[in-house]
Amino acid sequence: MPVVHVYVWSGFSNEAKKRTIAGITKVFTDMGIPREAVEVIIQEVPKDSWGVAGEQASERLKETLPP
Amino acid sequence: MPVVHVYVWSGFSNEAKKRTIAGITKVFTDMGIPREAVEVIIQEVPKDSWGVAGEQASERLKETLPP
Amino acid sequence: MPVVHVYVWSGFSNEAKKRTIAGITKVFTDMGIPREAVEVIIQEVPKDSWGVAGEQASERLKETLPP
Amino acid sequence: MPVVHVYVWSGFSNEAKKRTIAGITKVFTDMGIPREAVEVIIQEVPKDSWGVAGEQASERLKETLPP
Amino acid sequence: MPVVHVYVWSGFSNEAKKRTIAGITKVFTDMGIPREAVEVIIQEVPKDSWGVAGEQASERLKETLPP
Amino acid sequence: MPVVHVYVWSGFSNEAKKRTIAGITKVFTDMGIPREAVEVIIQEVPKDSWGVAGEQASERLKETLPP
Repeated sequence: MPVVHVYVWSGFSNEAKKRTIAGITKVFTDMGIPREAVEVIIQEVPKDSWGVAGEQASERLKETLPP
Repeated sequence: MPVVHVYVWSGFSNEAKKRTIAGITKVFTDMGIPREAVEVIIQEVPKDSWGVAGEQASERLKETLPP
Repeated sequence: MPVVHVYVWSGFSNEAKKRTIAGITKVFTDMGIPREAVEVIIQEVPKDSWGVAGEQASERLKETLPP
Repeated sequence: MPVVHVYVWSGFSNEAKKRTIAGITKVFTDMGIPREAVEVIIQEVPKDSWGVAGEQASERLKETLPP
Repeated sequence: MPVVHVYVWSGFSNEAKKRTIAGITKVFTDMGIPREAVEVIIQEVPKDSWGVAGEQASERLKETLPP
Repeated sequence: MPVVHVYVWSGFSNEAKKRTIAGITKVFTDMGIPREAVEVIIQEVPKDSWGVAGEQASERLKETLPP
């Protein structure tokens, strides 16, 4: 423990994945939890499968790209 | 809030995604929740990765297709 | 299929649960999916366990209550 | 009920999916739960999206493959 | 890996939890995955928060109890 | 986006929740994502509902406490 599930838009870069995994793990090791106990699972979801305010993110947030 | 995760079989059409996002969001705005607060995340899962009654949906529900 | 997970703040009323379950199910039956195939799982999360913009919802959205 | 979500690395074989679905379902039917009530959803996650001990599994567990 | 999330109705007994954890873990160790790599997270959900066929399980499945 | 689900053992302190929410949010704002777009949902799971290596964490990791 902990287990962390991260949902982001498809297109999340390898660099962003590395930083997400390292950064979230550090949040918990800073609290004294052993590094080996932290599991982070990133799932990429296409923008047309992600709804915000009743619309697809692919429509509503056309210009916004994942890091 | 709320955050809604929807799991469906792969092949869910763009029209079905739109209706899912709009329809679920309306359920909550009808209760007075602001539209911007509703997030809907649809994940498509291949039928051979989906088990029903101990069998893959790709075997057990061969003829059934997602909308 | 589908399986739907709904995350809301603790204090969601029984009436709100009923409407959530009936409303989300209807979204899918309107697409031709049989009613029996829809499963909706609501999980209530205390506002101090829910973070928005880096803060606990119990701090940031003190006045807002779930329906 | 129950609904079971299984997260594994991408590359999980069809044979492994079958065994996962059949095996997990049996755990519950052995407790008296009807077979039809058990739903198992397997999601494959690329090893570079899976973090263990602060690193991508694609780096840390380079040699390990899913069954 | 794997990480397994199990959703059941509230009232799942300690014996049922033990069997769920041991049984699901065995499904994966039988495939050659090391025991230490399997994480099983059981979440109990009240029957009035669980919808089946558009109704609360507390209404529709009044007589059914978890093991 | 992103939406982050964090699963920890029951007993996670208010201070730990605050740090989890602030720390994870910062991981994403450091990548240029607006603070308001980050949602973090922490769920506490009793140790007897959490399985590691086939056993309940309440048995296997009796002495370990959440931060």
